[in-house]
Amino acid sequence: MKKKAAKHKYGDRFERGMKVLKKMGRENLMLNQKALSPEMYEMSVGHLFGDVWGRPGLSLRERQLVTLAANIAMGRPTGNHSHYLSSLHLGITQREIIEVMIQVGHYTGWPTLSNAVRQYTEILEEKKKMDAAKKAGRVYHSKLL
Amino acid sequence: MKKKAAKHKYGDRFERGMKVLKKMGRENLMLNQKALSPEMYEMSVGHLFGDVWGRPGLSLRERQLVTLAANIAMGRPTGNHSHYLSSLHLGITQREIIEVMIQVGHYTGWPTLSNAVRQYTEILEEKKKMDAAKKAGRVYHSKLL
Amino acid sequence: MKKKAAKHKYGDRFERGMKVLKKMGRENLMLNQKALSPEMYEMSVGHLFGDVWGRPGLSLRERQLVTLAANIAMGRPTGNHSHYLSSLHLGITQREIIEVMIQVGHYTGWPTLSNAVRQYTEILEEKKKMDAAKKAGRVYHSKLL
Amino acid sequence: MKKKAAKHKYGDRFERGMKVLKKMGRENLMLNQKALSPEMYEMSVGHLFGDVWGRPGLSLRERQLVTLAANIAMGRPTGNHSHYLSSLHLGITQREIIEVMIQVGHYTGWPTLSNAVRQYTEILEEKKKMDAAKKAGRVYHSKLL
Amino acid sequence: MKKKAAKHKYGDRFERGMKVLKKMGRENLMLNQKALSPEMYEMSVGHLFGDVWGRPGLSLRERQLVTLAANIAMGRPTGNHSHYLSSLHLGITQREIIEVMIQVGHYTGWPTLSNAVRQYTEILEEKKKMDAAKKAGRVYHSKLL
Amino acid sequence: MKKKAAKHKYGDRFERGMKVLKKMGRENLMLNQKALSPEMYEMSVGHLFGDVWGRPGLSLRERQLVTLAANIAMGRPTGNHSHYLSSLHLGITQREIIEVMIQVGHYTGWPTLSNAVRQYTEILEEKKKMDAAKKAGRVYHSKLL
Repeated sequence: MKKKAAKHKYGDRFERGMKVLKKMGRENLMLNQKALSPEMYEMSVGHLFGDVWGRPGLSLRERQLVTLAANIAMGRPTGNHSHYLSSLHLGITQREIIEVMIQVGHYTGWPTLSNAVRQYTEILEEKKKMDAAKKAGRVYHSKLL
Repeated sequence: MKKKAAKHKYGDRFERGMKVLKKMGRENLMLNQKALSPEMYEMSVGHLFGDVWGRPGLSLRERQLVTLAANIAMGRPTGNHSHYLSSLHLGITQREIIEVMIQVGHYTGWPTLSNAVRQYTEILEEKKKMDAAKKAGRVYHSKLL
Repeated sequence: MKKKAAKHKYGDRFERGMKVLKKMGRENLMLNQKALSPEMYEMSVGHLFGDVWGRPGLSLRERQLVTLAANIAMGRPTGNHSHYLSSLHLGITQREIIEVMIQVGHYTGWPTLSNAVRQYTEILEEKKKMDAAKKAGRVYHSKLL
Repeated sequence: MKKKAAKHKYGDRFERGMKVLKKMGRENLMLNQKALSPEMYEMSVGHLFGDVWGRPGLSLRERQLVTLAANIAMGRPTGNHSHYLSSLHLGITQREIIEVMIQVGHYTGWPTLSNAVRQYTEILEEKKKMDAAKKAGRVYHSKLL
Repeated sequence: MKKKAAKHKYGDRFERGMKVLKKMGRENLMLNQKALSPEMYEMSVGHLFGDVWGRPGLSLRERQLVTLAANIAMGRPTGNHSHYLSSLHLGITQREIIEVMIQVGHYTGWPTLSNAVRQYTEILEEKKKMDAAKKAGRVYHSKLL
Repeated sequence: MKKKAAKHKYGDRFERGMKVLKKMGRENLMLNQKALSPEMYEMSVGHLFGDVWGRPGLSLRERQLVTLAANIAMGRPTGNHSHYLSSLHLGITQREIIEVMIQVGHYTGWPTLSNAVRQYTEILEEKKKMDAAKKAGRVYHSKLL
């Protein structure tokens, strides 16, 4: 009920957000937000992905690079794993991801570089499990996403 | 003396760094580092610009976008003004800079967006003074750089 | 033109945002955003103040306390001065502001407490100038806002 | 021995701190501090909870909201799980907690919002285990606390 | 009145704090705290300098190095200028300060190194003014302290 | 192949870095970097440990204290566990480590102190496993390093 109302509230901003998320291969993310607070989830999809990521002026690839950089910079425990997957999905190569880590690491500290290496390595391992599950017709919800 | 020794120590890494700095229109920066510690300055030019910025794998434009993003993310008081100037020098448009601010601001907080707007506005005003000084044959050292 | 289009885009979200800003005594802020990018300004008013600050579930006073806390925590160079003014405007007392500084300072470090004291002291001095200017029928744009 | 001396050193500040902690439902926390360094633990109880949290000027509810906000802002890996439990213990509702996340997330970045959602969801699951253990007369020490 | 009461509250912790501050050459600092909130000032002197800086287990020189490092790491706009002065007062050499900048800068990003260079350079210039004023029998309150 | 080329590139800077790492008891670290990007690993060993940690001007003990402080300050999820081990290896005592936590925690917030306690406690437990494995002739790769 509530969720429907919220979806309605964001209307085609929500639809636009979902389209961006699909291009990025992220349509099944932010599920814990959806479970905890449908309104928060609608805002994330409708505003963050619909209105912000959907803006012209930078290519999707560049928005992704810039977001990856900001997140590596902050060195947070969570929140960037999914961006490595969408980076790869958008055609950013592993070599380019490594270069972003090295470049940003010099502006925000070597441990942000190591934290990025660790998170990227973790999510590649999860990706294998997700791909295997998909192949086997199962769903595997990674705790990292 | 000391400086010469240090320059020698970084050898062609220093030269490569200066080349990158020239491409970015930044050859007269980090002068307070140079004044305080020539060795630190050599390391900044030789390692940061020679060995890091000079790496292949990302274009100079993309390294600049990614660095701008990391610095906007951190919301520090200083250190990003010069990157707005080198961004413009490298052909990144004001519109693109604004998009980086909006994109990053959503990942690191609205005040990092406002701080970026403020610093960008400040440096544009300084740029006018620097350009006017140059035209008049004077040197204007901006305190923001 | 552009600005009008943007305002139209955010429609009554913009109007709702302006109403919240008026309640907070902040209707003349974010002017450098407005000057640099009308679209960014519309998003700040329409989304941040219209859709976020305008939400039910917490009183305006509590949203303000919580925002003051988050900003003191981050210890950024700019972006919190205006929140001290809106706090006072909303009836939060100086004593309460001091308690927020002490409480948050213990969770984010003594220098964030001192930085808060400094910024609060600065803006009180600016407020005197703004009030004097207003009384004299002049406009005084504080560089801190 | 040492611990006793330290307790003595903080004297009734320690007692006052424990009273505040009991009101917050936190009396069994910071046990790894207690194990590593009794003096550090005495300082945490005596100074942080006795002298800071015990101050007048803000209600306990408001101190908790403000602390929750500061911790969500910092996006740290640990240290906020316990504050969700004490928030609920003090009568702050889940809806209000969600509003704090949304409000703060706009000042410190969307990933701090997602990190908060994740940590809150984790601790709710731990709470179930702790409550079940208590009911069964067992003690369950959550690694998140 | 209020101040006296507060001083009384912290009793010999306040006295011990002032002794540490004198050893560090900092006895006239935190004056804006003192002006805004005598109680906050008493807590800073009594707890931070009396109970924390006054602890055994690390030499004063090492506490200062460690504090300098933490503050350089955070890259905040204010709060570290005074620590360069107390470092010099305690016999830490400029060369050692530069090494701390280089070491920490690699763990928290090059702009924290440049921010440190800038703040150190600023405070050296202020120190000249303070020393000249002192010689001339005047008092010069630096806005950076 | 690639790795060899990179090693060659850093030449004796790499060798110098490995010598510093051995003195610190860290010769088997950064293995996920080595696996992901040999060039990044060479830069970490050659530049960070060879050129930065290997500098004169501060003792190795002081560089370690200062690095510990910077990392505790940042409160990151990873990257500091290994520095507790090298601190102990270099003869810094547990008591001194605790003092660094208390000192830094007051400049960057109580949760950075608790995060440090947690990470230090975790790595001590891992150390037991590593030591037991070594004794038994097995290798135990800690996920925390």
